[in-house]
This record gives sequence, structure tokens and C-alpha cells, in this order.
Amino acid sequence: MTQPSTERKPRPRDAQATKALLLEAATDEFAEHGFAGARIDRIAERGGANKRLLYVYFGDKDDLFDAVLDEQSKAVIAAVPLPDGDLCAFAAARFDYMLANPRARRLANWRTFERSEPTEAERRTFKERVDTVAAAQNAGRLRDDISAIDLFAMVLRLTESWLSAPPGLLTASGRRNPMSANRLKEHRAALIAAVRSIVEPR
Amino acid sequence: MTQPSTERKPRPRDAQATKALLLEAATDEFAEHGFAGARIDRIAERGGANKRLLYVYFGDKDDLFDAVLDEQSKAVIAAVPLPDGDLCAFAAARFDYMLANPRARRLANWRTFERSEPTEAERRTFKERVDTVAAAQNAGRLRDDISAIDLFAMVLRLTESWLSAPPGLLTASGRRNPMSANRLKEHRAALIAAVRSIVEPR
Repeated sequence: MTQPSTERKPRPRDAQATKALLLEAATDEFAEHGFAGARIDRIAERGGANKRLLYVYFGDKDDLFDAVLDEQSKAVIAAVPLPDGDLCAFAAARFDYMLANPRARRLANWRTFERSEPTEAERRTFKERVDTVAAAQNAGRLRDDISAIDLFAMVLRLTESWLSAPPGLLTASGRRNPMSANRLKEHRAALIAAVRSIVEPR
Repeated sequence: MTQPSTERKPRPRDAQATKALLLEAATDEFAEHGFAGARIDRIAERGGANKRLLYVYFGDKDDLFDAVLDEQSKAVIAAVPLPDGDLCAFAAARFDYMLANPRARRLANWRTFERSEPTEAERRTFKERVDTVAAAQNAGRLRDDISAIDLFAMVLRLTESWLSAPPGLLTASGRRNPMSANRLKEHRAALIAAVRSIVEPR
């Protein structure tokens, strides 16, 4: 598509656009360096605004990190549904999402690793997931001898078995490229089979 | 036991003892700050030796990190057996080990997250694990419609479902303390049940 270059790269004139640029810059910075390593002045520079504006829009570093995490929560919810508590569909979609979004993967890792206090949006999101699993258990679609929260926690972690595998394990299969399209497809099928085995009603 | 205090806390006179102290200090430092964040002078200080000695014994920061990782590999192998490819026993033992060793957990997380090049010991260790799983598959003790490496990678990650769960999920179950002894016992039982469901021969 050909567009005038002035339209393709608009200068952010309004607060909304500036905020979006800064949030995007913060997401990059936190994904790269984690919460402790991230630097506010680098975020401001990346976002093309000054530091004071960052404080005005988002508050301090904690608030800014929370804003990034909330945004991430929303993106994952939109991209990774849990239709009627179908954990196999969820696992496949989350694997695809995490594969396509290394930044989300890094952020999720830092997030779990560095900070213990969840945001309200995260808390709400996970509660909804667990409630959906519990409802599917009550409807007889999922095994119910494991509590909904444990079942969900295990499936969630399973979706990262390959993408977060220790480097020494990834190369244990010899010369195959562990991240080739074919290899990933194979692991994805194994993941879905494993989730099915875990969750099917006894 | 009563011993003269000079014997209880011996001053490290020989190279072996100094090396051990420095390796211990390095393990603490890398677990806390990761590879990028760790500081050689802090390690020397923690280990009660000077920086030059650290270089003499271990080489540069990369070599030192490798030495720490190899030591960790050995400790995990000793504490978490995989008897005849019994992945349920393995999962239970690894859960217990990781629960009892937050430092090992942090190191493993940094390790996967920060550095892509496995050490020789790590590579060998994981290859042995995968070979053991493959042998159990051949003997009909484990399902064989999922490759040994995928099966092992999934069980490995499953053992961390609770200990590495997102904070927002841990608190999704309401007021229960997610790390109380009872709660952990419940999750451990769920973990073993899930692993059994995944690995049992079809």
C-alpha cells in the first residue's frame, strides 16, 4: 500500500497517541531488562517523550509496570480463549500465542520471577479462567478429581514446556533444530495429546 | 556436639576449601542477580578471597557460571532420580527438591532465561534422562506415541506448575495460603495424578 509518508508515521499530537507510544516503549524495556533492570529515562527516550510526561500519564515505575502487565493480560485474553473450559483448545492457542510473541514470553517470565504482587486485572483474569474450568468440571466435560486451579496451573505451565525448556534439553535430541517449524508442530501435537490425557473425565 | 570452635569453623587453608567457598558464593550471587547482574567483586567478597584468586581457580565470569551450573546439575541428579524411567517418582522428587531449594529454582530460571549455551554436563545429564525415558517406552512402561524428549520436557515443566505459577493465579483461589504445607501437599498429589495420566501406556 502506498501512503504519504507523513501519514504512515504520524507525529503523536494528542495525549492518547503519546500514551500508546510510551506504553509500547515501556513494554519493550520491561521485556528486555525486567522490572529491576528497566530504566525510566530509557523508556522516555524510546517513546520519544520526556520523563515528566511519563510520570504524569502513568505514575511511578511500579504503576507503569502494572499498566504494561494489564495491557498484556488483555492481549492474552483476546488471543487465547478458553471456550467452555476446553483446555486442549486453550493449550494450543496459548502455545501459538507465546511462540508468536517472544516479548510476551519474556515479560511473563520476568513477571513471575521478579514481582509477587499481581495487578487487579491479572487477579480477575485468572479467577475467570479458574471459574470457567470449574464450570466445565461441574458439567462433566473435565476431570474433577483435581481442583480447577491445580488443573489450570498445570495446563498453563505445560504450554511452555518446549518454549521454556532448558537449553541442554533442547539440544539433547541431537542435530535437529529444536525450533524448526516441523519440530514445533510435533511438539504442539504432543502438548495437545498430553493435555487431553490430563483433563479427560475419568 | 561440642567441638572446639577452631575446629567448627576452620579457616580455609587449602585450595580445595577456598574453591568450595568461592563456588558457594558464586552460586548465591548468580541465583540472586542472574548472569548479567552478578558481580565478580561481590562474589570474591562473599567468598572471602580476592578477585585474582577467583580468576585463577575458575577463569572468567562465563567459566564461573558454567562451574556453578555443573555443580547444580550434579546436585539435581543426586537428589532427583529417574528410576527405570518412572516419571511419577521423578516428578514427585523434583517437586520436593525445588520446593526445598529456592536457590536452585532461581538459578534454573535465570539459566533458561538468560543464556542459550548449555554446559557439557547439562547436555549429558539431559541426554541421559531422555535415553532413560526412551528405554522405559521400549519396555512398555511408558506411552510411546509421544517422543521421549517431548514427554520428558512436559513432565519437567509440570513439576514447576505451582512453584512458578503467576502470582495472580496463586491468589485466585481466595484466602487460602498458596504455599501452606497442606496446599502444597494437595498440589503435589494433583501433580502425580496428572503425570500418571500423561505417561501411562495407551
